[in-house]
Parts: sequence; C-alpha cells; structure tokens
Amino acid sequence: MNMVEIITHKKLGMELRSDEIEAFVEAAAHGTAPDYQLAALLMAIRLNGMTAEETKNLAMAMAHSGDMADLRAIPGIKVDKHSTGGVGDTTTLILAPLVSACGVPVAKMSGRGLGHTGGTLDKLESIPGMSVSETEEQFIQQVNTEGIAVIGQTGTLAPADKTLYALRDVTSTVDSLPLIASSIMSKKLASGADAIVLDVKTGSGAIMQTLEGSLELAKAMVEIGTLAGKPVHALITGMEQPLGTHVGNSLEVKEAIDVLAGRTKGDLLEVSLLLGSHMLMLAGKARDEEDGKAQLSAALYSGAGLQKLRDMIRAQGGNAQVCDDLSLLPQAPIVRRITVGCSGVIQDMDTMALGMAAQAMGAGRVQKTDVIDPSVGYILSVRIGDTVEADTMLCEIHARTEEDALRAEASIRRAITIGDTPVKKPPLWYAVVTCDGVIYKEME
Amino acid sequence: MNMVEIITHKKLGMELRSDEIEAFVEAAAHGTAPDYQLAALLMAIRLNGMTAEETKNLAMAMAHSGDMADLRAIPGIKVDKHSTGGVGDTTTLILAPLVSACGVPVAKMSGRGLGHTGGTLDKLESIPGMSVSETEEQFIQQVNTEGIAVIGQTGTLAPADKTLYALRDVTSTVDSLPLIASSIMSKKLASGADAIVLDVKTGSGAIMQTLEGSLELAKAMVEIGTLAGKPVHALITGMEQPLGTHVGNSLEVKEAIDVLAGRTKGDLLEVSLLLGSHMLMLAGKARDEEDGKAQLSAALYSGAGLQKLRDMIRAQGGNAQVCDDLSLLPQAPIVRRITVGCSGVIQDMDTMALGMAAQAMGAGRVQKTDVIDPSVGYILSVRIGDTVEADTMLCEIHARTEEDALRAEASIRRAITIGDTPVKKPPLWYAVVTCDGVIYKEME
Repeated sequence: MNMVEIITHKKLGMELRSDEIEAFVEAAAHGTAPDYQLAALLMAIRLNGMTAEETKNLAMAMAHSGDMADLRAIPGIKVDKHSTGGVGDTTTLILAPLVSACGVPVAKMSGRGLGHTGGTLDKLESIPGMSVSETEEQFIQQVNTEGIAVIGQTGTLAPADKTLYALRDVTSTVDSLPLIASSIMSKKLASGADAIVLDVKTGSGAIMQTLEGSLELAKAMVEIGTLAGKPVHALITGMEQPLGTHVGNSLEVKEAIDVLAGRTKGDLLEVSLLLGSHMLMLAGKARDEEDGKAQLSAALYSGAGLQKLRDMIRAQGGNAQVCDDLSLLPQAPIVRRITVGCSGVIQDMDTMALGMAAQAMGAGRVQKTDVIDPSVGYILSVRIGDTVEADTMLCEIHARTEEDALRAEASIRRAITIGDTPVKKPPLWYAVVTCDGVIYKEME
Repeated sequence: MNMVEIITHKKLGMELRSDEIEAFVEAAAHGTAPDYQLAALLMAIRLNGMTAEETKNLAMAMAHSGDMADLRAIPGIKVDKHSTGGVGDTTTLILAPLVSACGVPVAKMSGRGLGHTGGTLDKLESIPGMSVSETEEQFIQQVNTEGIAVIGQTGTLAPADKTLYALRDVTSTVDSLPLIASSIMSKKLASGADAIVLDVKTGSGAIMQTLEGSLELAKAMVEIGTLAGKPVHALITGMEQPLGTHVGNSLEVKEAIDVLAGRTKGDLLEVSLLLGSHMLMLAGKARDEEDGKAQLSAALYSGAGLQKLRDMIRAQGGNAQVCDDLSLLPQAPIVRRITVGCSGVIQDMDTMALGMAAQAMGAGRVQKTDVIDPSVGYILSVRIGDTVEADTMLCEIHARTEEDALRAEASIRRAITIGDTPVKKPPLWYAVVTCDGVIYKEME
C-alpha cells in the first residue's frame, strides 16, 4: 500500500477505505512508514475529518495493532469506565470499589496522565507500596479473588495508538474528534471489557469545551462501540469547575477515601454514583439510574465500598492502612491557607488554568519523562455560585517550596472570577448518549 | 520559537507572522525541527492556504536560507527564465543562445528534473563531454567571455527549499499554490538575476491543468518578484500537447539544434521567440514583443544563435561538433516507427501520460537516484487538430529494448484520442502577467 496515495486521498477529502486505514495503522505500529508521512496524514485528518465508518475502522485497526486482553477467565459482564479527563476528577477511585461491592467485577486498565490532569495510576501510586504493574494473569487472578483491580495498560496494548498519540502531541493534531474518539475506543476495545461507560467532560477544563463538541465526541464513541458489538453509555458531565475539591494525587486519594468513608458529599460523589449506576445497568445489575444509585449508596453507607478499596490496595502491595489513617499518605512540606480577599459571588473558573497550576507544582507531567510529586496540589474551598466574603477560605495549597506556593496562589486567583451578579450552580451532567439516541437532562 | 504553536496557527487558518515563517524556514534549512513537524505544517499550508504576504515572506526566507549568487561582476541586466515544466519543452536550449546572440548576457542556473519531465541539465548532459557543474567564479567568467552559461544550481542555493521540496514529494503536498510559487521564486531570487521571465504551463501536461490555476500561480510569482524588487513577466503557455515534437533528452537537444539551424519551425520555435522577446524587453533591448521577436529571428537566420550554442558547449567541455553532426548524440539501439492505424482527427492528448511514457523508458527520474538514459524517447508526428489516415506516421520510438518500445507504444496510443469531430489547434499562449496586470491573448 502506497502511503503517499493514502495521504492524497484524505487531502482531497475522500473517505479512506478500510485497507487504507489498516495500512496506516500498520505503519504506525511497526514503523514501516516514516513519521513525516504519518504526521501529514494526521493533519489531513484533522482538517478534512473522517466519517463514522472511517473512525470505527481506525479504532478497530488500532485495537488490533497489539495484544487484545482476554478477560473471559473472569465470570460475569466486565464493564469498563473511561473519562476524557478533567480536573479533580477522582470518580474511578470511588465508583470502582462501589461497583465491585455491588457484585460486578471491576477489571480496569488505565493509561498514564499527560497534560493538565493527573491519571488514575498516578493517584494510586501515591499510596505507599501500591503497584499498578501486574501481568495479565495476576490481574485476572486478582479480579477473581478480590472483585477489583486497577492497573496500567500492558505495553503491547494498541501500540499504533501509542505512536500516533505521541506524534499528535507534537504536530498540533490532538484536537481532532475522530482521532480522539478512535484513540480512546481503541484502548477500551483492546482492554477486553464487555461494555463501556464513558464520562465525556464538557466545559472550561475539558478537551471539548462546548456541549456541542462533547456530544459529537460522545456520539462518535458510542457508534464505534456499537459497530464493534460492545454496548456503550456516554455521559456528558460538567467540567466548568474541578469536580472534587481536591486537586493533586495524594490529595485526591484522600478525598476519595473521605467520600467512601461517608465523611464527604458533593458533586464528586453525585457524578460517581451516576457513572456507577450506568456501569451496573450495563452489567445487568440495575434496572435504571435510580436503582443503580440506590445499590451504590447502600454499598457506601455499609462501608462495603471502602472495604473493597482496602482489598484492592492490599492485593496490589499497597498499605491499606491509608484508608483509616490519612496521614500515611505523602504530605507536602508547605501548606498555606488562602482567603478570597474580597466579597462577591464566584462567577466562573478557568478550569484548564486550575489544572495547569497543579501541573506546574509537580502534580502532572509536561513531558512523559517528568516525575510526579504525589504530595502537591490544593484543596479548593469555593464553587461557582458561592457567595464569599473577604475572609472566606479560597484554598489550601500543598507545595514543595514557598515559591511554588506563591506561584500556585497567583495562578489560582487569576483562574477564578469574582463579581456581583448572582450565578446559578452549573449542572453536573447534560446528557446521556447510547445507541438508542441522546437523553438530555431536563434543565430547570 | 515553538514549532507546535506555528503549526497550530496555520491549522486554525491564521496568517503566519514573518518571524514564524522565518523560524519554519530556519528549521528546514538547519534541521532544528523534526521532519514530522515540517510535514504537518506543509499539510496545514496545503489545506488552509497562504496569503500573498505569507507567500512572499516564505519565498524570501527560503532564498536567504543559503548563499545568494552575486552576479554583479557580469555587466548588464541579467534576465533569468524558468518554466513550471512541460513535455517536449526545450525552449531554454533555443532561446538562451538567441537571447545571448542579441547581446544580453545569459547566466542561468537550472534545477534537476524530477517527475514526468526531464530537466534542462539532463538534456545538456546528453551532449558528450558536457559539464554543468561549474563554480560560481567559472560561471561568471564564462558569461563574461562567451555571453552564455547554463549550469546546475550550487549546493547551497536555497537549502530550505531543497528540504521542503523533498518532504513535499513524499507527503502529497506538492500541489499547493503558495508552496509552488515560493519554491520557484526562492531559487530565482537566490540565483542573482535582475529580472525573470516565467513560463507558466497550462493544460493536461502542466502542474496547473486549468487556466484559472495557472493564472493564480503566475500572479503569485509576479507578486513575490515585485515585492522583492525584481521585475517579472509571467507567460501562460499551452501544454495541451508536447510543445516540441521530440520527447527525451538527446532527442530534444537534436530538435533544438534543428530549430537553431533553421531546419525546423513550429510551436516550439514560436514559444521560444515569445519568451525570448520578453527577456529582451526586461533587459531593455527590445521595445515590445514584435521588436524582440524580430531581433531573435535575425539571430536565428544569421546562424548567430547556433554559434552561441556551440560556444557554450565548448566552454563547458562538451563536443560542439554535435551542432553539425547530430549522429554524435547518444543513439538508442531500438528505433521503431508506428502508424496511427485508423483515420480521423486528433482530438486531444493526455500530455502527462505522454511524459510518463518517456519517464518509464528511462528519460526521466522516478527517484532522485535514478540514472537517466539520454538516448531514449520518441518523436511525435501528429498534433491536436491534425487529420490522419491509417498509414499516417504516429511516432518514432527510440528505446533500450523491444519490450520498452512496445510498452511505450501502448502508452502513447492510450494517451492520444482520435475521433471524427473537427478540432481547432489549441492556442500557444493565453496571457501575460506583469506587475501592471494581466493581458489576455485575443482569442479568434
């Protein structure tokens, strides 16, 4: 297959045939075409788009470019969950134990975080002793004994996506809907789950900042799953502000434990219950959202959810004591509490900038080789719509140095707009997309 | 300067600033950015275009990316001529001696042919002993003593264009008007000429196949020249069929000698006189086309033109005897004469396919490293609009092997359509573009 011909077809706005897409993916997986040809094709895809058929073929070809995890040795319907990435988005650490406690096996392979948000793996690794690198056999074994495992993807899962993702990052082709949809779905299809719940974020901290763009992305991913024979529920949830109050790796673990221990409520819990209820529905354990939320809430208040988290941490070599003694988590040397400094109403937040502020402190990676500091981050005390006074607490910053803390303070202040107009709380979710169509949330 | 940011700007359809274009060209010239970033930017330029200002800045930056030839040691106004490439296009070998014989110094640096047409250098090298690799000093010296020199570009002329041209070839980004215009003009600006005549081909054998596209390209190049302070006349000439009757390197040299010796007339001579007259106009030696053509014709009929070709060949180490004994040129072992085989009128020709047929025989390069066979090609005996009988000669094929000859015959037959409808001869030229605007040929 001639790569120049494939590039030419996409340049001219034609639909690529499946054999052309397979040749492209083969070239990415095995280095049989030079990077500059892949880069030219990625830009042509970014500017000329792809049809649903092309996007599905790309996802399938990337999924099949490496090993396909085989989870048939785990009885029951395995439901995976994936988020397009947000700030303070710790839902996995909350819903995975709760769903498992409801009797649905949770076998989750996660990717590493790159960009303005930390990944689930980075959060788990902030727990002393915790390992996220198991073999597929150990992984299956753990799910069968503990009912839950969250590990890193094995190296040979969707290698074509790995190559293309790295190339997109340095050629300004990340923001392409078919490339995002196929990248996410290729890894989910290769991970071996039977069904998938997608959390598609929308708002100032999301990869898709408009509701329209998020809906398009959700539809594209649901369509890929449907064509691949795997049911997908995609929820469009809000990322106008950080989901939880805690931003940073060990801080987010702490918040998840607080939620599972029943000490903390709020948006993070609500969205976790919503996503978890759809996992139970896809697993055939719940009739509808309400039934699912009720089962998950019962698992939370009985302590069964927190126990599942303890079980998973112990099984993966971590110190499960952190669930009962939060001081065992890594602590930053500098902790500073900041007040708002003026009175008014929180108008909005530049959530991307809030994520970047945590990244700059060492909570996220700019480059793949960067080492994360698990202890740093901040706890935000205000939410959009809150009425504040000058002495209202704005946030608690956990930093490596005084200078880092000062820089974070300035960034956080710049990212939060305070004014006089009353502001409504933004909705937690907007719509659910399944193969049957879109159900919009009834807006008040 | 951040390359990803530059790519992002063009991806979003923004106009690149001159410092961004300079950084891009710098990266191409010195390898300071990886090829995949250059490739992504080239595709973004191909799909989102460039303004006149951007195109001019790109041409200027590429011209200045290497050495700028300094021809001030040659007295008089030096006028260069460049063709966008056609089949059977041997005008340089005819007009350069004629213009020189009219007292205008011809100091021409040519590029290598790649694609469906052979380059002037390849044609010259088919003359036994002829060298086209002189130093700039030898080149200037020869122009001052002989009044004429045609050599290859020195290695350090517009190195950024060299890199980008090679990359465009393998990333399907050749067909971009701003990239074509800036590539051609960067080399012309770096070659040190005071004024430039451009022969922009249009039709089935041209890089721009429509008159509209050819006019756009001509305007873009005239604008670059004007902004760079170098007068440019661009002529849109027809490439609906090969310009000369001879296609192939030594065959084209033979045809040029036949024309300069007064033995052959026709379209090739007409277009050579037209282009040559504009060179004389830009050099201040002719008032208008008519005056220029009269001077050039006088030089042809006096034999002064052919003498200039002899002088140049001798000065560059070649056997000038070829001008008087054509059998000294390389001869192909197989020569076959083909008749039309049916009666009718020649309707049209796929000139690109005719060029490819010669390339496939060994007259052109598919890859840079391909070695050209100077002896192969063919002589076409028919032109569009001709009435033919079954036994009318179609062409004379000069090939390396019987198999090559057969393959060429099939390709040539497929490329020429014969029908019953009377057909007009296509015009030799359509328009002249200068900084004052476009003058269209009066169509009958």
